[in-house]
Amino acid sequence: MNHFDAPTVIRTKRDGGRLSDAAIDWVIGAYTDGQVADEQMSALLMAVFLRGMDYGETAQWTAAMVASGEQLDFTDLRRDGSPLKTVDKHSTGGVGDKITLPLVSVIAACGGAVPQASGRGLGHTGGTLDKLESIAGFTGVLTNAQVRQQLCDIGAAIFAAGQLAPADAKLYALRDITATVESLPLIASSVMSKKIAEGAGALVLDVKVGSGALVQSESRCRELAETMVALGAEHGLPTCAVLTDMNLPLGAAIGNALEVAEALEVLAGGGPPDVVRLTVGLAREMLEIAGIDQRDPEQTLRDGTAMDRFRALIAAQGGDLSVPLPVGKYSETVTAARSGTMGDIDAMAVGLAVWRLGAGRSRPGEKVQPGAGIAIHRRPGSPVAAGEPLFTLYTDTPQRFAPAMAELDAGFTVTDTPPVGRPLIIDRIT
Amino acid sequence: MNHFDAPTVIRTKRDGGRLSDAAIDWVIGAYTDGQVADEQMSALLMAVFLRGMDYGETAQWTAAMVASGEQLDFTDLRRDGSPLKTVDKHSTGGVGDKITLPLVSVIAACGGAVPQASGRGLGHTGGTLDKLESIAGFTGVLTNAQVRQQLCDIGAAIFAAGQLAPADAKLYALRDITATVESLPLIASSVMSKKIAEGAGALVLDVKVGSGALVQSESRCRELAETMVALGAEHGLPTCAVLTDMNLPLGAAIGNALEVAEALEVLAGGGPPDVVRLTVGLAREMLEIAGIDQRDPEQTLRDGTAMDRFRALIAAQGGDLSVPLPVGKYSETVTAARSGTMGDIDAMAVGLAVWRLGAGRSRPGEKVQPGAGIAIHRRPGSPVAAGEPLFTLYTDTPQRFAPAMAELDAGFTVTDTPPVGRPLIIDRIT
Repeated sequence: MNHFDAPTVIRTKRDGGRLSDAAIDWVIGAYTDGQVADEQMSALLMAVFLRGMDYGETAQWTAAMVASGEQLDFTDLRRDGSPLKTVDKHSTGGVGDKITLPLVSVIAACGGAVPQASGRGLGHTGGTLDKLESIAGFTGVLTNAQVRQQLCDIGAAIFAAGQLAPADAKLYALRDITATVESLPLIASSVMSKKIAEGAGALVLDVKVGSGALVQSESRCRELAETMVALGAEHGLPTCAVLTDMNLPLGAAIGNALEVAEALEVLAGGGPPDVVRLTVGLAREMLEIAGIDQRDPEQTLRDGTAMDRFRALIAAQGGDLSVPLPVGKYSETVTAARSGTMGDIDAMAVGLAVWRLGAGRSRPGEKVQPGAGIAIHRRPGSPVAAGEPLFTLYTDTPQRFAPAMAELDAGFTVTDTPPVGRPLIIDRIT
Repeated sequence: MNHFDAPTVIRTKRDGGRLSDAAIDWVIGAYTDGQVADEQMSALLMAVFLRGMDYGETAQWTAAMVASGEQLDFTDLRRDGSPLKTVDKHSTGGVGDKITLPLVSVIAACGGAVPQASGRGLGHTGGTLDKLESIAGFTGVLTNAQVRQQLCDIGAAIFAAGQLAPADAKLYALRDITATVESLPLIASSVMSKKIAEGAGALVLDVKVGSGALVQSESRCRELAETMVALGAEHGLPTCAVLTDMNLPLGAAIGNALEVAEALEVLAGGGPPDVVRLTVGLAREMLEIAGIDQRDPEQTLRDGTAMDRFRALIAAQGGDLSVPLPVGKYSETVTAARSGTMGDIDAMAVGLAVWRLGAGRSRPGEKVQPGAGIAIHRRPGSPVAAGEPLFTLYTDTPQRFAPAMAELDAGFTVTDTPPVGRPLIIDRIT
């Protein structure tokens, strides 16, 4: 046994020192076991937040979290006699980010396989499992055998992280209530520990930049992306990162069931151009890094092969797409007070408004409203006539309209000057 | 109700902001009630530790902790028809610091009254209640009525803080396990909230400076003292502070029962000169700030009147001084490896050695060994002959000798050059 104790480890970081590999292994292991108490870990997290961790500490912290649980391995999977190439995508979280739904289907249609351990939303960003659970019967609780079978049969499985990196699951919940989320080493180790444990053969990271992102400044996002790419390489997981804009919400639908509906539009060959562009862009990155023979991902959206995979995936996980998606029992429409041009729509304001409508949680484990959300009728730059509907808000609890409206009101304007467009894909980091 | 939540308050301090009065009142109240969880408070404490609090925040934090419990008031006490003047002393904690025992007796003998809400030791410093509890039958659990009666009859009561500043009691235990103890605003508010709630008419602070102190540097001790003096003034509690040296242990006996025995020597007119000097020096400060007609405190040690008060105090609180004080079942002696002069003895090393012998706690609520401790046979500057005993260590658990010896070994030397003497009383701050 090591001779560590929590106050000494905390004091080291508090005073700006470096945590040794042994100290990191001890503290993560002892926290997972419950020997280090939540109140001690949260003090350490705040010290890490304010003092930082260097790359070596971050790498050890990541490795210790991977080692805290089981690690999946799909390298032996074969389809039609050939090795099956697996690849995953992870987004650092945004508003209206339903990209995973069409994207895994596109990759499956292109001959790859996506084992995606997914999480739930917390705060103003949505979680993929919450979105999929708005489909009647869908479950993200899969055995490892089911995951392997789906990867071979369909090319995709989206499942609750469960026993992968349990230290991270505990830390994630703790960080959320102690204001220690937005720390680059803690974000990087959290994302990469889950993704390394998940066992995909390669990884593409979608690092969100802008007002609706967890980390807002581009330079810090770049640093985060570089750290995560290096952590992947160190663990034999080829990783690249794409910086994408999250000043505007993605697409025109925000909220669990609304986003599933929009994903279905994209899979049917339509949908908002930004969602299509990001899906196709990320698919190209995934196919390239995984070394999958390039089939045109856009083609799979047009020819219905991606839609077929999506339907198969949902069916395999118990979902029934013939049941209509839930819609909030109450709706309210925001109309334009004047004519002009729709200005920028602030992603954070929309995310908070949707959260207030009941689509997200304020505590882990809380139930979300599948039908709550916002439909955006006028995208930035669109002409607007006075009195035209700009947004429709949905919820099952009408008293939520007022606080949601307050958030949304601060997040858009109708102006005379069209907003300056921004590139959706800002840069790639390999 | 206020619209505060813990993550927002933590985030404000984390980002270097100032906490509003309302935010401080809310977070201290909600923590006392259990609405703010320990893991949230410890993250806030670490943010306070690293970001600091200004004087206004510290004052509000102190006031909120005072308001978390009951506040005693002795202004109506009278003896022989005249108002009874109450005054207390608080030490920031040292090694061998048994000064409270003779000091309260001296003040009582001089006609004042000392209502001392006292604590237990944690870490390498001892607590007054732990020391007194080595006397058979002694209890620090007194009702408010008992405290008042003792003040009138004897002029002293030493009691467990109980319902005074319960927020501080919770915070103190939390700080100890989360490495957030040594923060000036947190120390100042902790000390002063208890002392303001305690209701003494005036206060003298003994702020320890040096290796064995909680805050080691003189400049930071000065800042701490100035903050506490100002907090006292703000709450109508006349307060002065004395900076005293804590590089060397106080006296020649460290450990609960050993320190009671040494206090009895001082009360009998003998004892180590440093203990006598500090007792008399602090007594003069207390008499002056409380406006008690100056009787010579030294005289009360010589003429037995202070001893009488001590015996009356112990008897009133159930203690029986006719029962021999406990002594550790096992002892080991450290002898001089060479002849020369005893060099400096490091207070921290001795404090840790005594703690390892079983005199202190590593967890709140743990039982301490009343007979564990160290007797120092050669004080710094004394001539030493090879083979002479320098220290005797006592414990009930002989396996504790080795770790205690390791701490002690690093804390002293026998040299050829006598150590440079330091003044015991460094400065006074009013």
